[in-house]
Amino acid sequence: MSDAPPAGAVAVIFTSGLSARDPQGYAQAATRMASAAAARDGYLGIVSARGEDALGITISWWRDEAAAIGWRNDPEHTLIREQGRAVWYDWYRVVVATVDRTYGWERAT
Amino acid sequence: MSDAPPAGAVAVIFTSGLSARDPQGYAQAATRMASAAAARDGYLGIVSARGEDALGITISWWRDEAAAIGWRNDPEHTLIREQGRAVWYDWYRVVVATVDRTYGWERAT
Repeated sequence: MSDAPPAGAVAVIFTSGLSARDPQGYAQAATRMASAAAARDGYLGIVSARGEDALGITISWWRDEAAAIGWRNDPEHTLIREQGRAVWYDWYRVVVATVDRTYGWERAT
Repeated sequence: MSDAPPAGAVAVIFTSGLSARDPQGYAQAATRMASAAAARDGYLGIVSARGEDALGITISWWRDEAAAIGWRNDPEHTLIREQGRAVWYDWYRVVVATVDRTYGWERAT
């Protein structure tokens, strides 16, 4: 996993329900989206999970609000968003939030 | 899914890697945790996904910081957290963030 986002970082929390259409195309697009995000200035990391019920959560972390807005307006992101509405998603929701604090734990080996 | 969290709400973003131990016990605990959260004052909703790679994301939404802290200190939550460290998780991370804005889309039917 990526390092913990610092206080003041911006989380873009994307939850979505997949349609049953074109799962291969969706998988390819998801990979392209992750690459496009990682190439942007201010990118801090991404984490994603999708269960068998087709509900998915993807969180991308950004240095600041400007970087998160830049990602929203990214041309490839915009293109894939339009394809997502046309084909892959039944619904999605975006929550933008500012990190207050982070903590974690891992098993001693 | 639950309604969109309003600006000023607090997101508790829990990402975790499951160990291979006691998956049934984990599933029961996850259900109890969701019930315990929903019973608290200030609870706004929860969303959760876990993929086949054992990485999971659960986000609980709270009215304000006090409600999020109350959940952190909830006795049943604390008990299950300790069991989680002992048995179910290899690692976890918690990010607490304040909602700036929310938007969404759903397919017209």
